[in-house]
Amino acid sequence: MAKILLINPNISDSVSALIRAEAARSASPGSVVEVLTAPFGVAYIETRFEALIGAYAAAQLAGEHHARFDAVVVAAFGDPGLAALREVLPCPVTGLTEAALASAMQLGQRFSIVAISQRIRAWYRETVEHCGLVGRLASIRGLDEPLADIGNVQGDQGERLVQLAERCVVDDGADVIVLAGAPLAGLARSLAGRLPVPCVDGVSSAVRHAELLVAQRPGRARSGSFAPPPPKPHAGLPPAIEALLRGPAPPG
Amino acid sequence: MAKILLINPNISDSVSALIRAEAARSASPGSVVEVLTAPFGVAYIETRFEALIGAYAAAQLAGEHHARFDAVVVAAFGDPGLAALREVLPCPVTGLTEAALASAMQLGQRFSIVAISQRIRAWYRETVEHCGLVGRLASIRGLDEPLADIGNVQGDQGERLVQLAERCVVDDGADVIVLAGAPLAGLARSLAGRLPVPCVDGVSSAVRHAELLVAQRPGRARSGSFAPPPPKPHAGLPPAIEALLRGPAPPG
Amino acid sequence: MAKILLINPNISDSVSALIRAEAARSASPGSVVEVLTAPFGVAYIETRFEALIGAYAAAQLAGEHHARFDAVVVAAFGDPGLAALREVLPCPVTGLTEAALASAMQLGQRFSIVAISQRIRAWYRETVEHCGLVGRLASIRGLDEPLADIGNVQGDQGERLVQLAERCVVDDGADVIVLAGAPLAGLARSLAGRLPVPCVDGVSSAVRHAELLVAQRPGRARSGSFAPPPPKPHAGLPPAIEALLRGPAPPG
Amino acid sequence: MAKILLINPNISDSVSALIRAEAARSASPGSVVEVLTAPFGVAYIETRFEALIGAYAAAQLAGEHHARFDAVVVAAFGDPGLAALREVLPCPVTGLTEAALASAMQLGQRFSIVAISQRIRAWYRETVEHCGLVGRLASIRGLDEPLADIGNVQGDQGERLVQLAERCVVDDGADVIVLAGAPLAGLARSLAGRLPVPCVDGVSSAVRHAELLVAQRPGRARSGSFAPPPPKPHAGLPPAIEALLRGPAPPG
Amino acid sequence: MAKILLINPNISDSVSALIRAEAARSASPGSVVEVLTAPFGVAYIETRFEALIGAYAAAQLAGEHHARFDAVVVAAFGDPGLAALREVLPCPVTGLTEAALASAMQLGQRFSIVAISQRIRAWYRETVEHCGLVGRLASIRGLDEPLADIGNVQGDQGERLVQLAERCVVDDGADVIVLAGAPLAGLARSLAGRLPVPCVDGVSSAVRHAELLVAQRPGRARSGSFAPPPPKPHAGLPPAIEALLRGPAPPG
Amino acid sequence: MAKILLINPNISDSVSALIRAEAARSASPGSVVEVLTAPFGVAYIETRFEALIGAYAAAQLAGEHHARFDAVVVAAFGDPGLAALREVLPCPVTGLTEAALASAMQLGQRFSIVAISQRIRAWYRETVEHCGLVGRLASIRGLDEPLADIGNVQGDQGERLVQLAERCVVDDGADVIVLAGAPLAGLARSLAGRLPVPCVDGVSSAVRHAELLVAQRPGRARSGSFAPPPPKPHAGLPPAIEALLRGPAPPG
Repeated sequence: MAKILLINPNISDSVSALIRAEAARSASPGSVVEVLTAPFGVAYIETRFEALIGAYAAAQLAGEHHARFDAVVVAAFGDPGLAALREVLPCPVTGLTEAALASAMQLGQRFSIVAISQRIRAWYRETVEHCGLVGRLASIRGLDEPLADIGNVQGDQGERLVQLAERCVVDDGADVIVLAGAPLAGLARSLAGRLPVPCVDGVSSAVRHAELLVAQRPGRARSGSFAPPPPKPHAGLPPAIEALLRGPAPPG
Repeated sequence: MAKILLINPNISDSVSALIRAEAARSASPGSVVEVLTAPFGVAYIETRFEALIGAYAAAQLAGEHHARFDAVVVAAFGDPGLAALREVLPCPVTGLTEAALASAMQLGQRFSIVAISQRIRAWYRETVEHCGLVGRLASIRGLDEPLADIGNVQGDQGERLVQLAERCVVDDGADVIVLAGAPLAGLARSLAGRLPVPCVDGVSSAVRHAELLVAQRPGRARSGSFAPPPPKPHAGLPPAIEALLRGPAPPG
Repeated sequence: MAKILLINPNISDSVSALIRAEAARSASPGSVVEVLTAPFGVAYIETRFEALIGAYAAAQLAGEHHARFDAVVVAAFGDPGLAALREVLPCPVTGLTEAALASAMQLGQRFSIVAISQRIRAWYRETVEHCGLVGRLASIRGLDEPLADIGNVQGDQGERLVQLAERCVVDDGADVIVLAGAPLAGLARSLAGRLPVPCVDGVSSAVRHAELLVAQRPGRARSGSFAPPPPKPHAGLPPAIEALLRGPAPPG
Repeated sequence: MAKILLINPNISDSVSALIRAEAARSASPGSVVEVLTAPFGVAYIETRFEALIGAYAAAQLAGEHHARFDAVVVAAFGDPGLAALREVLPCPVTGLTEAALASAMQLGQRFSIVAISQRIRAWYRETVEHCGLVGRLASIRGLDEPLADIGNVQGDQGERLVQLAERCVVDDGADVIVLAGAPLAGLARSLAGRLPVPCVDGVSSAVRHAELLVAQRPGRARSGSFAPPPPKPHAGLPPAIEALLRGPAPPG
Repeated sequence: MAKILLINPNISDSVSALIRAEAARSASPGSVVEVLTAPFGVAYIETRFEALIGAYAAAQLAGEHHARFDAVVVAAFGDPGLAALREVLPCPVTGLTEAALASAMQLGQRFSIVAISQRIRAWYRETVEHCGLVGRLASIRGLDEPLADIGNVQGDQGERLVQLAERCVVDDGADVIVLAGAPLAGLARSLAGRLPVPCVDGVSSAVRHAELLVAQRPGRARSGSFAPPPPKPHAGLPPAIEALLRGPAPPG
Repeated sequence: MAKILLINPNISDSVSALIRAEAARSASPGSVVEVLTAPFGVAYIETRFEALIGAYAAAQLAGEHHARFDAVVVAAFGDPGLAALREVLPCPVTGLTEAALASAMQLGQRFSIVAISQRIRAWYRETVEHCGLVGRLASIRGLDEPLADIGNVQGDQGERLVQLAERCVVDDGADVIVLAGAPLAGLARSLAGRLPVPCVDGVSSAVRHAELLVAQRPGRARSGSFAPPPPKPHAGLPPAIEALLRGPAPPG
């Protein structure tokens, strides 16, 4: 049981709705999930520059709202801003990629990622590299065509996504499929039984891992590279960012 | 909520008692944990040959008892037999190392392992390599002296273990400490607040990740390298092993 | 000959002055360098969260000012926002780390980084990992004590920095020393002849590599993962960021 | 000249016969080879779980019989139990994969493995990873169809195996072909001159490397991670396993 | 401005002419470039043995002529003898591969190499591995057919080379194309605007990086593994090689 | 049984004598070993430039003499010219490093190298990297003081070398010690029983592996990157080098 804030670092309310629905289905009884949509940014993140924007938006939302929550989730695959927020938030924080990989690594040896576009693959690959797990990455496959409607990818492209997953297993040697990206939230659930290997998605993974990290109470970093940044002069920052920099007290 | 079988692949009842106590403290309300001790093997596993024995014992216990459970945990750091059991069990299966690393990777970038002996370090290192996470391993440090009592390592060596953890942070650059091995089960909990970085242990991580994997319902492998082994002649096997080879039906 | 914009992603005018002086000394005859200081942020970047802020500030300055320049330099070691800006700027863009490593890799096989603090080492290490060159990294060593004055690190700590460099060579096997961070701009020049191996710093490397990339005219990405982001809805962005997202035309 | 025990960790007498014939052809004059078949297990090993069984069977045979021999070979590709046996046997011990790779690495830079099935490839890949040589692995290709007769793969599938090897060279960049698995024992010999690159198989490699290691007399580990396991309580073990645990004396 | 010696380690005057033309086009105003052709060797280098010959020829030319120059370039992709010359020359020395990669790494994350033959790919791959950048290598593609005229590859095969580059981007995920090999010198320039991603070639990169390294004045190694070799007896060496071994004095 | 040519790529007759003695002790009954000393070069190789010279000298000796032999050994640790010679010689060819590692990898998981100087360590490390085994390298330790007599290192420094080996085991985690370099030929034999882990040296390993490769008859490369170099114009080469380039016929 935990109060979990999911931050959609993009501006798409339709994607937030998908996240909210899947988060609610995934949360344990007694847990509370809340999804906030970025007040500025792009419709969905495919590139490093879009992720830079999303990271800053996520940080602002986190600074404004985290105090009411036990854990925070960066609710975009690619985890924009995740490691940065881990330094300054007093509570556990995870992301769709990191959480999905934490499940996937316990379900098989090699995993593939199925994604919503070709372009997005490079950014996802770099995220997996940052996680140190690129040696277990079998492949990343993405949809070929431009998205007609970011809030309805599953309806438009469901069959194609299943085909991509099958190719990951047969051609690339995947033991596990990761359905990547908030626009695919809930798809793993609706495909239950149709894929030849275990399948996880980011939103349900992140909600459950957030609950787990809250329950595990691992303690907060007072030293090492995830301790709060050393105090130093700053200027011109939005209040929410400034509040994070001031270094919130460790949990009581 | 899940029924979880923890298999101690060693013969030490005193270690099983530590596992049982920490598992009970870690499990969610409504979950049931049961710990079984290997009927044959060694007092505790430090080497590859001891792990070979433990893996076979774990497989026998798993074959005999898994049907009553929703998930199985190989309850020794080093995860003897884990990947093998993942092929043949119809339910999720995790191990102390894999589960602890799945938590650690969401708490910081680099982690160190604190262990009960010098000898055990090579085997742990190979386990982390097999997990594909050696690039994030800051160090493995172990106690220097022979263990007087495997069931009371924490009492005998508690201060020394804290010192090792501190060296991992200051000298080796660890962001997270993993307290390794069933004999240290519960130590992370009793050290709460004394370590400068987040700390996880294997037993509590494994119980929680087992619950998570049960809840996530990722589906079972019908293809890929974790599908049940292809049928083929066999002979001379204990009934519990034979039952696993026959390839249990996927969950209904 | 090129017009080069160096963006100090921090708010310290004293550091901008160091950057400006070293950039002027490094630039080829006929080149023009201009240094801009972030209008918001922290005094100097040591952590991932501070880098998140610096990346956003750098993007805003780049969006506002790049049109007058032939190349842009992110003038902080760690290169906050560099890969993101490379997607959206029509001109070459480099950073202190990337440029210093591009020189270092042509001066020896393994390099060490000497830095201004202990804390900063984890972030630098991740930057080198992102560059794919961690296999050639001999070590990162940093000053132990808190900085009294970020604009006068060289004066306060010059001897200590030389000692750190010597330990990198003798103890760690470095063939080349990289003096990291804008606060050390110019130190490599003043240490000429005092270090036992070749030494490069970030600012002079970045200015020269920016000139080189302008001269080389490699063409801009119209495809691949550094093409401008695909057009999509956006909202609430500062005009300078929005301008970058609109995807400037390739150079004529 | 050496007395070499080859342990077939599977129950297939037909495969033992192939091993025996190739071992006899490969052994130096004066050497003696003996092949023992596992008293329990499966017809041939393709998966991690089957390897767990084979490892335990190999350990029992090794414990019972090693005293009469100068060296022991685990005669299945994938080397089940090899590293474990290396800790407890007083004589050199090698396996089909390790020995074949030790030859292959002296015949070219990158090697491919040709195997008897698709399923077996994941296990082989993990074995190569454990050997630390995955950076030199060009590819693993396997037969597509189920095996009609494990003792007659070469007769049934000889042409297809040659085609796979040719694709490894042309499409994957292999400099050397490793014909994997005891069921292919002798095939390298019969293909002499038909493959475009050097070719080794596991059985002949293992016999020769076992002879080499006996001749080299490198001494036995009294320290480090391959010394005999530290003495500790044990229970319920088969006499052959128990004998190995007792830690045989180093060779006189 | 620098005097740069480019050493063609092959005997082809037609290739030296291509190198000379592109070097002259690439050099900064005031720089002087001179190209020398190996007095012994092969027409062009595709293999490790040919590179061994080219390295020795390059060393002889370097020994005879370096004193008149500020920098030396080994003007063959694959950089035969480069690291060796870096130990003994008192001036900066670079090579076509190293310099091209130093540019490419600042233009995108992953790069592909387009080469003049299939055979040459293995040697290039090993060169990239030696540079520590194989993790950023998307692919190496080469022409299929034997070269009719090494001095006219661009004319004969220009269209095919463009097609190969396009496949590197679309199929292999390259962000940058490296046109490899002295026989392709100048091609990047003539293809300006025709490739979908930034493109660099070796000769222009090497000239510019040589100028940069001269300007940067990083100092020479007096310690570490690129210091001059320790004095020791030698015999039978050509005077130019002997002169290099005597260890030239550091630049004044 | 094989006729083996060992090429000492240095000019030191005293080292050739050590090689000859150890090779004779290591060879199987009936094998013939012959050691040739380079007609030009340095006293012993510690650096990349010295290796460049040694590689060329080794190639000349190989070209002149290989026809009388069944196998060729490059008898210097670091293996100068080895991969190049493998392309052009019709018989197996190995080197001290490669052969020693091929033994070491079958004796434990991680190995350390003990060497004759500090300077030599960088070159050895690069050799291990080229072998793809750097992930199994525990450490390289070398003597600190200048060598008084290259032909009597063992007598002068025997105790110190043993101490270095012990530190490799205790401090660095080595399972196996490799005594590196022809000047240490025979030391492993004389230290039998004094080291706590298995120990191999280069000369005895290379002789035995050469015999093994001759016996194994793997066939010669007609395709792939170790086939003879494609015919092309050449000029000015010594007859022995030219003969190798002409591409000797495959063995009958």
